Amino acid sequence: MISPRSADIHAAWLPSEAFRAIGSRRILVSGPGTGAETVLREIERACARYGGSVRRQSPPSGGERPAADRAGADTAPYDLALVLATEQALPVETAARADLRRHRGEGTGTLGEEGFALVRHGDVTTVLADQPGGLRYGLFHVVRLGESAFGPARQIEVHRPATRLRIANHWDNIDVHPVMGQVERGYAGGSIFWRDGALRRDLSRVGDYARLLAACGINAITVNNVNVHVTEAHLLTTRLGDVAAIADLVRPYGIRVHLSVNFASPVALGGLATADPLEQDVRAWWTETTRRVYETIPDFGGYVVKADSEGQPGPFAYGRSHADGANVLADALAPFGGVVHWRAFVYNHRQDWRDRSTDRARAAYDHFAPLDGQFRDNVILQVKHGPLDFQTREPVSPVIAAMPATRLAVEFQATQEYTGQQRHVCYLGPWWSELLRFAPWGANGDTVADVAANGGLVVVSNVGDDPFWTGHPLAQANLYAFGRLAWAPELDPAAVLDEWIDLTFVPSATSDPDLLRRTLHEVMDDSWRTYERYTAPLGVGFMVRPGNHYGPDVDGYEYTPWGTYHFADRDGVGVDRTRSSGTGFTGQYPSPWSDRYESLQDCPDELLLFFHHVPYGHVLRSGTTVIQHIYDTHFAGVEQVAETRRRWERVAGLVDPAVHARVTERLNEQLRSAQEWRDQVNTYFYRKSGVPDAHGRRIH
Amino acid sequence: MISPRSADIHAAWLPSEAFRAIGSRRILVSGPGTGAETVLREIERACARYGGSVRRQSPPSGGERPAADRAGADTAPYDLALVLATEQALPVETAARADLRRHRGEGTGTLGEEGFALVRHGDVTTVLADQPGGLRYGLFHVVRLGESAFGPARQIEVHRPATRLRIANHWDNIDVHPVMGQVERGYAGGSIFWRDGALRRDLSRVGDYARLLAACGINAITVNNVNVHVTEAHLLTTRLGDVAAIADLVRPYGIRVHLSVNFASPVALGGLATADPLEQDVRAWWTETTRRVYETIPDFGGYVVKADSEGQPGPFAYGRSHADGANVLADALAPFGGVVHWRAFVYNHRQDWRDRSTDRARAAYDHFAPLDGQFRDNVILQVKHGPLDFQTREPVSPVIAAMPATRLAVEFQATQEYTGQQRHVCYLGPWWSELLRFAPWGANGDTVADVAANGGLVVVSNVGDDPFWTGHPLAQANLYAFGRLAWAPELDPAAVLDEWIDLTFVPSATSDPDLLRRTLHEVMDDSWRTYERYTAPLGVGFMVRPGNHYGPDVDGYEYTPWGTYHFADRDGVGVDRTRSSGTGFTGQYPSPWSDRYESLQDCPDELLLFFHHVPYGHVLRSGTTVIQHIYDTHFAGVEQVAETRRRWERVAGLVDPAVHARVTERLNEQLRSAQEWRDQVNTYFYRKSGVPDAHGRRIH
Repeated sequence: MISPRSADIHAAWLPSEAFRAIGSRRILVSGPGTGAETVLREIERACARYGGSVRRQSPPSGGERPAADRAGADTAPYDLALVLATEQALPVETAARADLRRHRGEGTGTLGEEGFALVRHGDVTTVLADQPGGLRYGLFHVVRLGESAFGPARQIEVHRPATRLRIANHWDNIDVHPVMGQVERGYAGGSIFWRDGALRRDLSRVGDYARLLAACGINAITVNNVNVHVTEAHLLTTRLGDVAAIADLVRPYGIRVHLSVNFASPVALGGLATADPLEQDVRAWWTETTRRVYETIPDFGGYVVKADSEGQPGPFAYGRSHADGANVLADALAPFGGVVHWRAFVYNHRQDWRDRSTDRARAAYDHFAPLDGQFRDNVILQVKHGPLDFQTREPVSPVIAAMPATRLAVEFQATQEYTGQQRHVCYLGPWWSELLRFAPWGANGDTVADVAANGGLVVVSNVGDDPFWTGHPLAQANLYAFGRLAWAPELDPAAVLDEWIDLTFVPSATSDPDLLRRTLHEVMDDSWRTYERYTAPLGVGFMVRPGNHYGPDVDGYEYTPWGTYHFADRDGVGVDRTRSSGTGFTGQYPSPWSDRYESLQDCPDELLLFFHHVPYGHVLRSGTTVIQHIYDTHFAGVEQVAETRRRWERVAGLVDPAVHARVTERLNEQLRSAQEWRDQVNTYFYRKSGVPDAHGRRIH
Repeated sequence: MISPRSADIHAAWLPSEAFRAIGSRRILVSGPGTGAETVLREIERACARYGGSVRRQSPPSGGERPAADRAGADTAPYDLALVLATEQALPVETAARADLRRHRGEGTGTLGEEGFALVRHGDVTTVLADQPGGLRYGLFHVVRLGESAFGPARQIEVHRPATRLRIANHWDNIDVHPVMGQVERGYAGGSIFWRDGALRRDLSRVGDYARLLAACGINAITVNNVNVHVTEAHLLTTRLGDVAAIADLVRPYGIRVHLSVNFASPVALGGLATADPLEQDVRAWWTETTRRVYETIPDFGGYVVKADSEGQPGPFAYGRSHADGANVLADALAPFGGVVHWRAFVYNHRQDWRDRSTDRARAAYDHFAPLDGQFRDNVILQVKHGPLDFQTREPVSPVIAAMPATRLAVEFQATQEYTGQQRHVCYLGPWWSELLRFAPWGANGDTVADVAANGGLVVVSNVGDDPFWTGHPLAQANLYAFGRLAWAPELDPAAVLDEWIDLTFVPSATSDPDLLRRTLHEVMDDSWRTYERYTAPLGVGFMVRPGNHYGPDVDGYEYTPWGTYHFADRDGVGVDRTRSSGTGFTGQYPSPWSDRYESLQDCPDELLLFFHHVPYGHVLRSGTTVIQHIYDTHFAGVEQVAETRRRWERVAGLVDPAVHARVTERLNEQLRSAQEWRDQVNTYFYRKSGVPDAHGRRIH
């Protein structure tokens, strides 16, 4: 093994400098178990660098060394700037503890496994938790606050995750897939777990990754692609040791490992004649196999299953429902507290483009809504945020509002499959925030985040073995923002970006940190909407190159079996999904959205072509016509990318030259690609509509 | 080695039954060398099966066994039905010989290396040749004639190839290419020469292949792809033994081996710092390398070079012309009688679709016409038949009429890259015949075949290790037709098809050979025009899926760098290549075609959109509008495929069940694909034009 973090691997949002405020102070850690141990280790490392000191109060469990033996340990009397303690382990009664008790009395109740309270009295900042896991999150909160954690007194704040399960799914393959490569839809190099058919010999980055995840709030990962190929299927049995090795590395950071499994495993691995979930020996196979998994990995999280989708096997082959399929796995997991994430991404990918009545957007609802109430309690239906597939703009999936008796997780995609593939800067925080705040039953009803609270929020990771982790250094912000929003969906995505900037960039910008911060906001705040401007218009989606999904191809999917159409002709464009004249998809929403989307007048502009087929001359709520909107946004989008590049040039001296060079290279490609999008989309619609640009700009 | 022809390999146009007429008779072969020896061996094999006998008159050269020792040899006095003899070796004066002398006196001159004369007096049919190679072609001519060679007396006929070099290019790779596979644009399985990085251990099919080539008139092959990758480059040096092994197998059938070489070989193989053709050590490297090639393969044919094209290296890198590049290789080959085939397929494949002034069709002429007269005598400029790339319909390349001082070869493509990939039946004989008969300078001028007479005709082979050789059994006819038309361009392609049918199918059809022959004509005669009907209309080309080139994608190449556009908008479609308002490409033709193509009125319908951008309502010479023509032909094309399938069903009992099943399977796919083409093309143009079908048929 080489050293835990080689010099040429970017530190992302945990550079040493981010620990300066902590590392220069005297600190007490008090609490049992791995959680407190990890906190202690983090602080020791910071103190070793910045001259502070730390002591641990309560004796560590097991055979660990006494705290006094450690580097930077402090044996002097109490004179502390920071205390991190579980309430039970707090050695003395303090004002902070009294605050917390008062707070509890007001009805905030337990802090839970991961929550913590922060308060500052006099010169002492205190993090209190019920469980040691909360100390970990409290520590990273103090890291985020930096010096401001040690300023004026702070009233008690309680932080608890809004969502219990906050999971990063890795679409990593063990064997390099002939088409999809080592990481399916990966834009950041190879896998940090797997290389060429085996577990990597050097797994040092897995530990670093776990640290990054914990610091932004993620608490689980899957380590293999939801498309479970032959080799990967064996992770469940003969290659379970590989999973255990990863689990050991991420456990200190409170990360549990889940596994994508193949529904046909009883046949493929167990040698049974069937994978019919109602067959007794299938049930027995899952029970026994799962028992062995927990024997090896006692804190194993559970299974993720993509069934009957894009060629993956599933219960349909046996005439069983997806509830039957999910429940057999759930029953096997239940004794150990494990869960099944069962993906709702089921649709006909052999659709006939001539048939306008079939609507892929309807598929997940049509398949799953009738099953509400039939799933076990430890089944979590994992729903993509939109009805299609991670497009730049989609409505919220109607499944989210359709299954009150089912635990739901909502899946987001940090890997930028359809949003520029980490060659384009596209900060997705604002998009995810909008989705999480969306209220399917109207302004006073629950939000998407509320629905997911009991199920989970899932992100498809954008991380690979790239030195910057994510290919595009600025794409790190997406993973960070997901974690933060999963923990606290009410956060302002611009404020989250600010956190990320302060952690990642500001400590190393010695000359003009304000210019750097301002520039990064200018570059990133609106970047998702900029990307939207120069790509597929008004929510119609796709228009990408089939297969690799990069760059424009307006008709690329128009006559394919994938169910992803725009139906542009010489008169108009868009998909009629209304009840009155279209596919009826709008009827899958509860009021008020079923009516808003149905109405040509009320439908939000940005989703107009998702729900309606309209003439090019249709006037949007914004007051402009559809065709002119297409031209205007595409010209504007490219201008914004050009401006972004100019702005980035200005901060050349303020960031690590390697980061600056990589971002510059990507911005050059983004500008080229944006121009290509602009010209192809504008030309396509000009050739079809014959309507000239009102401003006489060049259309080819 | 397994037996020369395994039972499950289809015999193509040389089934044993085709030799029945010969094999049942008494035959004399008289002549020296390999040519006569091969003829003798063919006849011995036939006689062993059908009871005839053969003797060889002149003593074989070298250490061969005396003829009398051979199976089927005849030691009885003369009582012959067939004599095949070089004139010099004819043992006695005969009427046939007198005919030939008389014929020569009338000015027909020498029969050349490959020509022969056929005459029948009384009960004796005689084939006479100047050289033993002619006996081989004479034998296969008698095979084609079958019993009719032994009927009434026949006046002397002289057969000489119109074109000296008749070459099959194999785009076979030694290493499996990650994208293109073992055979680039191969639709018949793997290579018969190479497998997974090495020469095949079992080369038995190479000998069979040579026999098939000789029987249709082809006299040379290249054994590796014109895109010469790293491994294949070494065939010129360290792997020359592989080439020699192939040469040994094909030599008995008069086939010479040529090699595709990489222009950068002096750098890649020779370790030189440059491949600049004007550098002395580059020249020396080619000289010495070529000398070694001839040391190993004394009858080596020469080099084929794809330079400065689609990423292949070339002289442009050194600021040298293609004449400079070709001549350095030519000089190295000249002492040994070898030739360089230098491909004219040079164009900018990084074109900007926005730039309508760049015209890929112009590229070969623009590059090469100015170099006329600058090439050595043993340079043959190898020109694709059309200005683009083997589309279903293109005008003849203007290069063919532009270089009177240069030897030209014309390249055809039997492998059906753009004509259905051997899943669609598409007999290309009529298309090639049309091209060969085309008279660039007008009706009384030379034809394309005339221009190629001194250069050559080249076909990209459609053969692989498929049991039927060509994937689609009926695609065998394309290779056969190429050979026959290369030998005799004036042949009627329907008559050539008849020959092929008679050789391949009729001998085994015991019950109703007439029905079978008629059906095959119905299925194949018009199949190329049928394919044209349901694919890209009126010569505009492409509209295929990028990359694999199979199936429709109307806009697939429209916004790409490949220079292959149709410019369809709501008003019209086509590429303006006129001098008056377009790219000026029409000016590359001599009169009268420069004017015919320029004129909207005179331009042939089938090429209208190649040369003109016209409104959908433009009335064709046929009297119908462009848009209605698109609809009509696409509906008709599919109907014809359906009819073809019905016809094929009728002959189920008349052909080998394996052949029938394979063709049926392909016809099913062809019908599906044709429907897809029809619907996508019709829908595309209906959506753009808004013009309904005059007959109210269903357009989606």
